[in-house]
Amino acid sequence: MTRPVITFATDFGPAAPAVCRGVMYQIAPEALIIDINHQIPRFSIRDGAATLVFALPHMPRGVHVAVVDPGVGTERLGVALEVARGDVLVGPDNGLLMPAADRLGGVVRAHALENPSLMLPVVTSSFHGRDIFAPMAAHLAMGTPIASVGRALEPGALVRLANPQAAVRDGVLESEIVHVMIYGNVTFAGSPADLEAAIGTLAPGHPVVLEFPAHDGAAAVIESTVWERTFGRVPLGASLLMEDSEGQLSLAVNQGNAAERLHLALGRPVRIRRG
Amino acid sequence: MTRPVITFATDFGPAAPAVCRGVMYQIAPEALIIDINHQIPRFSIRDGAATLVFALPHMPRGVHVAVVDPGVGTERLGVALEVARGDVLVGPDNGLLMPAADRLGGVVRAHALENPSLMLPVVTSSFHGRDIFAPMAAHLAMGTPIASVGRALEPGALVRLANPQAAVRDGVLESEIVHVMIYGNVTFAGSPADLEAAIGTLAPGHPVVLEFPAHDGAAAVIESTVWERTFGRVPLGASLLMEDSEGQLSLAVNQGNAAERLHLALGRPVRIRRG
Amino acid sequence: MTRPVITFATDFGPAAPAVCRGVMYQIAPEALIIDINHQIPRFSIRDGAATLVFALPHMPRGVHVAVVDPGVGTERLGVALEVARGDVLVGPDNGLLMPAADRLGGVVRAHALENPSLMLPVVTSSFHGRDIFAPMAAHLAMGTPIASVGRALEPGALVRLANPQAAVRDGVLESEIVHVMIYGNVTFAGSPADLEAAIGTLAPGHPVVLEFPAHDGAAAVIESTVWERTFGRVPLGASLLMEDSEGQLSLAVNQGNAAERLHLALGRPVRIRRG
Repeated sequence: MTRPVITFATDFGPAAPAVCRGVMYQIAPEALIIDINHQIPRFSIRDGAATLVFALPHMPRGVHVAVVDPGVGTERLGVALEVARGDVLVGPDNGLLMPAADRLGGVVRAHALENPSLMLPVVTSSFHGRDIFAPMAAHLAMGTPIASVGRALEPGALVRLANPQAAVRDGVLESEIVHVMIYGNVTFAGSPADLEAAIGTLAPGHPVVLEFPAHDGAAAVIESTVWERTFGRVPLGASLLMEDSEGQLSLAVNQGNAAERLHLALGRPVRIRRG
Repeated sequence: MTRPVITFATDFGPAAPAVCRGVMYQIAPEALIIDINHQIPRFSIRDGAATLVFALPHMPRGVHVAVVDPGVGTERLGVALEVARGDVLVGPDNGLLMPAADRLGGVVRAHALENPSLMLPVVTSSFHGRDIFAPMAAHLAMGTPIASVGRALEPGALVRLANPQAAVRDGVLESEIVHVMIYGNVTFAGSPADLEAAIGTLAPGHPVVLEFPAHDGAAAVIESTVWERTFGRVPLGASLLMEDSEGQLSLAVNQGNAAERLHLALGRPVRIRRG
Repeated sequence: MTRPVITFATDFGPAAPAVCRGVMYQIAPEALIIDINHQIPRFSIRDGAATLVFALPHMPRGVHVAVVDPGVGTERLGVALEVARGDVLVGPDNGLLMPAADRLGGVVRAHALENPSLMLPVVTSSFHGRDIFAPMAAHLAMGTPIASVGRALEPGALVRLANPQAAVRDGVLESEIVHVMIYGNVTFAGSPADLEAAIGTLAPGHPVVLEFPAHDGAAAVIESTVWERTFGRVPLGASLLMEDSEGQLSLAVNQGNAAERLHLALGRPVRIRRG
């Protein structure tokens, strides 16, 4: 008999997640709660969504509760989403959960979090993580059917984030930054296959150039680098373009911080061509 | 049969709490250890006490060990406090535990941590978290009676922190900052009911003014804001005065940091009146 | 029947360790995973090694996986080391594991991590923590014999870090900084016994002087301080030289940061004499 599994990700910082863990353990004393990350950049739904895509495919099947919620206390819904793999995702309906839900096979059933008997007795305006999401997740982990949480929602009507795409041009891949990792690695829309479609076959050591046009007050930057397999293959402090552990196009610096050095941030356009 | 529960809060940063967890798991291999927060501002007993008040009411009944201990290795006592709810709180006798003990019904029995057979074999001068508090907590969680830890103490003689109060005046609430939360929300002494006693009934959208006189080298600040239910109800970057999730008076900024923007810190006096 | 124990330390920051935990729980659903520290200074093998020496002696016997790995994806080996206490240490063969292995009685058997059936199906170039180390550790914790992970290695041929020594001179101990702790306490090579061999018997309150010659661009610093038992015994903001909780020579500041105040870093030479 395995323990019910609950995973947990928020932008709450250090103490508030513990309160939610306490609430969940009171309802599900034998649960295994796996904390994913509580230092998601504050209010960044897109960073939260990327964290879930990174983590959930490797988690045991279970209930996954995530809260990055600039709209807490306003009219946005809370939702529970059953996905094809059999997991249930719990959180605000603001786009946070959808990319990971897609990765786990897509949403097969969606319900609004409405049943007050599955919430704490007092629901505050500003801490739904503790008052709604945590107790709902714990009840679901203990076997409460998803239909008990509230009315069914149309999966197609759930809120989705914009999903940036790369454009394959003749000799250049036009893309943008979709994620900045904790140590400054920068991830781009589009896959290594897209890049090869644009600029031809890549092998370790091939020179490539990344052009970041002036954008949003930041000056234009041109970075000449190489295609490599891993950062340990370029000199200390040198940059490289690589396929990262998620299969994404990533710009990194060996033992350095690419985003900081080149003043790059989420949403920055880029053009990648041969050097 | 549920697992013995131990919760754990310190100002130790990342690695030292793990050592204490190792010590506790060696004594109580089946325990559920819930980390509350190990990033309490270093040596701030008052922040530690606020963290425990925030977290312990939502924790399962068990043993709660907390260490914020500028006096480690001096003459201050270590204590175990049984509270009315049935929990036992373990930590230094410096005021850290008392507000949460009160919240859990008050101290019914107090004992000094003196029994060397419940400590590690070698007790150092500077790491009582590992050498005394962690093993004591684990033994208590395993069922060791509280009277075994050492001599009984008079609950009324335990060290208490000063407890700032708000003063209801005619048209103004005189208060002070009692806590600065992780993302810059600022909490004041006194309740929303106290504020209404001073300035009349509050409804969402009512203008209020907070006057922070010059203090301790910081210039005077006047903030004109509104009473609201939650930060999502004011524009991005705007401030609001609200009842927070703990029922306290709180000044916040929607997706911003109130303490940083207004240069506010613990202990700062404030006068709140209608705008 | 106790749970299999896995401890886990990395320089990965907040989210990546959770992915590894997910991988381990999928293989070992009943395991107790104890996180030691995931904020080891990025790529600092020496800080990682010090963290393990600090933590592992207090951990229950089990499998200890640690990853600080600037050479990921290059030719460095992954290894599993059985030590005399009965634990198995898992990580890169770059010196990270050896000081803790020595502390646990020394390496009795070493094997290379080579068996692909004990790794994830796809091994990336840059995330061996998830793809190799975590699943190997979980399989070992579940009882897979160490010889199954790969060919035997000669323990004497494992990579070791340089191990700085103190020199006892007439009236002076010549040493260097071997660790800077999270709150700025500075640890030196050599023991309190070495210091007494150099400058005579020490008692609380004895004046001592630490001379840090100019080094690596940092100006010379002379700190006059006292030998004391714990930081609470000197005034707020004053420094002291003490035997820390690990039995090491340590320079600290009461409620302050010694490394920051004196501009000290890892590897800095020091001469300690009577004041």
